[in-house]
Amino acid sequence: MSFSVTVRDHIMIAHSLTGEVFGPAQRLHGATYLVDATFRAAELDADGIVIDIGLASRALETITESLSYRNLDEEPELAGVNTTTERLCQFIGDRLAAEARAGAFGAARLTSIAVTLHESHIAWASYEVAL
Amino acid sequence: MSFSVTVRDHIMIAHSLTGEVFGPAQRLHGATYLVDATFRAAELDADGIVIDIGLASRALETITESLSYRNLDEEPELAGVNTTTERLCQFIGDRLAAEARAGAFGAARLTSIAVTLHESHIAWASYEVAL
Amino acid sequence: MSFSVTVRDHIMIAHSLTGEVFGPAQRLHGATYLVDATFRAAELDADGIVIDIGLASRALETITESLSYRNLDEEPELAGVNTTTERLCQFIGDRLAAEARAGAFGAARLTSIAVTLHESHIAWASYEVAL
Amino acid sequence: MSFSVTVRDHIMIAHSLTGEVFGPAQRLHGATYLVDATFRAAELDADGIVIDIGLASRALETITESLSYRNLDEEPELAGVNTTTERLCQFIGDRLAAEARAGAFGAARLTSIAVTLHESHIAWASYEVAL
Amino acid sequence: MSFSVTVRDHIMIAHSLTGEVFGPAQRLHGATYLVDATFRAAELDADGIVIDIGLASRALETITESLSYRNLDEEPELAGVNTTTERLCQFIGDRLAAEARAGAFGAARLTSIAVTLHESHIAWASYEVAL
Amino acid sequence: MSFSVTVRDHIMIAHSLTGEVFGPAQRLHGATYLVDATFRAAELDADGIVIDIGLASRALETITESLSYRNLDEEPELAGVNTTTERLCQFIGDRLAAEARAGAFGAARLTSIAVTLHESHIAWASYEVAL
Repeated sequence: MSFSVTVRDHIMIAHSLTGEVFGPAQRLHGATYLVDATFRAAELDADGIVIDIGLASRALETITESLSYRNLDEEPELAGVNTTTERLCQFIGDRLAAEARAGAFGAARLTSIAVTLHESHIAWASYEVAL
Repeated sequence: MSFSVTVRDHIMIAHSLTGEVFGPAQRLHGATYLVDATFRAAELDADGIVIDIGLASRALETITESLSYRNLDEEPELAGVNTTTERLCQFIGDRLAAEARAGAFGAARLTSIAVTLHESHIAWASYEVAL
Repeated sequence: MSFSVTVRDHIMIAHSLTGEVFGPAQRLHGATYLVDATFRAAELDADGIVIDIGLASRALETITESLSYRNLDEEPELAGVNTTTERLCQFIGDRLAAEARAGAFGAARLTSIAVTLHESHIAWASYEVAL
Repeated sequence: MSFSVTVRDHIMIAHSLTGEVFGPAQRLHGATYLVDATFRAAELDADGIVIDIGLASRALETITESLSYRNLDEEPELAGVNTTTERLCQFIGDRLAAEARAGAFGAARLTSIAVTLHESHIAWASYEVAL
Repeated sequence: MSFSVTVRDHIMIAHSLTGEVFGPAQRLHGATYLVDATFRAAELDADGIVIDIGLASRALETITESLSYRNLDEEPELAGVNTTTERLCQFIGDRLAAEARAGAFGAARLTSIAVTLHESHIAWASYEVAL
Repeated sequence: MSFSVTVRDHIMIAHSLTGEVFGPAQRLHGATYLVDATFRAAELDADGIVIDIGLASRALETITESLSYRNLDEEPELAGVNTTTERLCQFIGDRLAAEARAGAFGAARLTSIAVTLHESHIAWASYEVAL
């Protein structure tokens, strides 16, 4: 038996990718990423929820606001990171996981956090991390 | 190796939520929930299916019709339930699971049932129960 | 030649409809409405836009926040209004039009405002008003 | 009586916008634009179509490939253009219109071309030009 | 000032297209068409609606049920029709328009009917007819 | 900890289903299937990806092109297969898995492949196979 709650936000960023495999995406280009953050739990709290949807939205928004309208190639936080869709999922997921472990989302009922970034209507990537 | 089939329906309901965490959602308000019911199986039956999509749709519709166009605060079936999106997923999932255990969906091949309720284009919740 | 910009928000409300034609929707129930507000212009301004998307979003949000998490049957603003999807489109569209006429959206280049409310994945309504 | 055919593609670009109204979007950032190109006609041709969907897709793809995976701030074609969503709609729509007027899409039955760019799940812009 | 209501249904059909322009679509193949029927009016009726959404859905369903799970190449109703997406929009739109003119949708307030068929997530066609 | 990448394509096919359970779908009819192929891995490669999205798209496209614009009842490859949505998921998933095992997608980091086919906006099926 398991439960989850997902909230959606988005970011609009510039970046370039390093590696021949990326072809034209090695050039400076950009993306709108729809960002879905999923919080999983084995059971609900006394209010009947995994996490308050408002709280989840604000937690995600704090992260998306720190990334949006930026050139990720020049963000100190991402120095040395090849900002593929997968790596950005991980970056956001790990930040949410760190907050969860620090108790930001109430009692320690959460079992994992997953983040999906849709880079277009025909491609997306996901990352899931256990808590 | 695993298979699943999902069917979608929707309900339009009024309700209020109990608990300070819900802020303005403590007031009487409402929602359209898109309801996705997923049936999982480890293998297919002799017809090559998990469950007939028509049968799955009718099973879901029986439940959604019992909820739709109602004020959930006054439904005897839900008395004492804080009708969060998560709890409604569980309510619908448990009803489908009970039918599955009672043999309504043919041979006992189903391994779990999952229900997702989308409360808007930016928030949804899920529940999964093993059979 | 014409241009438009559309922004999307949503509201979650309770209400009941008056009239036999509405069948079960005469009962108190509710809806999530996805609200799309479209601003049209025959030409762009000096910045190359119809309206700033941020400004358009905030203008829409002011209205959606005044409606969301409410029982529309008890809202003084809507007293005597049968709050069908069409009427709610008109209510929101007329408020945006009034702001446009009052100059809230810059120079008088806007030619019309349209509002679409999606009540589910299978039904929506629209209203358009000339400026 | 009128007909239309629409095809969808997408581009992933970097750019910055000029003008205080754009706030943080004045910084170098980026976007995935879903690009919908609509071809309108008052009547169908002898094959029963407005335009062959394959031909329409290829015409749009020629344009999207010339823009995708680029920093629009450095594209000679767009020098001096503030590449707002509206201006990019116009740029693509005018190129398709030029091809239509040059006879690329068969007999002169087309009455207009419209282009919509979705910059996220909550904001999009459109441009329509008569032929 | 104008209003509209749209309802969505779908059909799953086989067919082939006649004409070299269609390339591989000249072979027997098939499609799921999402079918959107839009009813427009200049003003609302006494109940505050363009058309009852339930009535609109049933009117559309009567037509979709007559087409669905069929090979359109062998349907007497469509004999001699090249069943392009545009022609199918017209077929459905003209049937709805005939019903509207015969008074099936109440008082004669409707000004036009539009039908959109989505043949995939990247291509759709529309037809609009005045009443 | 797990990662995935998903790419979307579509096919338009005719077919009929064998078995009384399918009711009217026993007749020759057709479908547009949106085809989502998901590649999962426990860790990323040196470039920071599960699989290059371009490579994944081309691998899926090779399969979808072999199926599209065809009557599946007459495809030698599918002789004797009841081409339900589930079976088609399995057919595509097993082909991608065979390529993965043959090394087509680089180093042997992939842990499973999943395929989802959406037959309409209200029904879809999935298949997942471990590598």
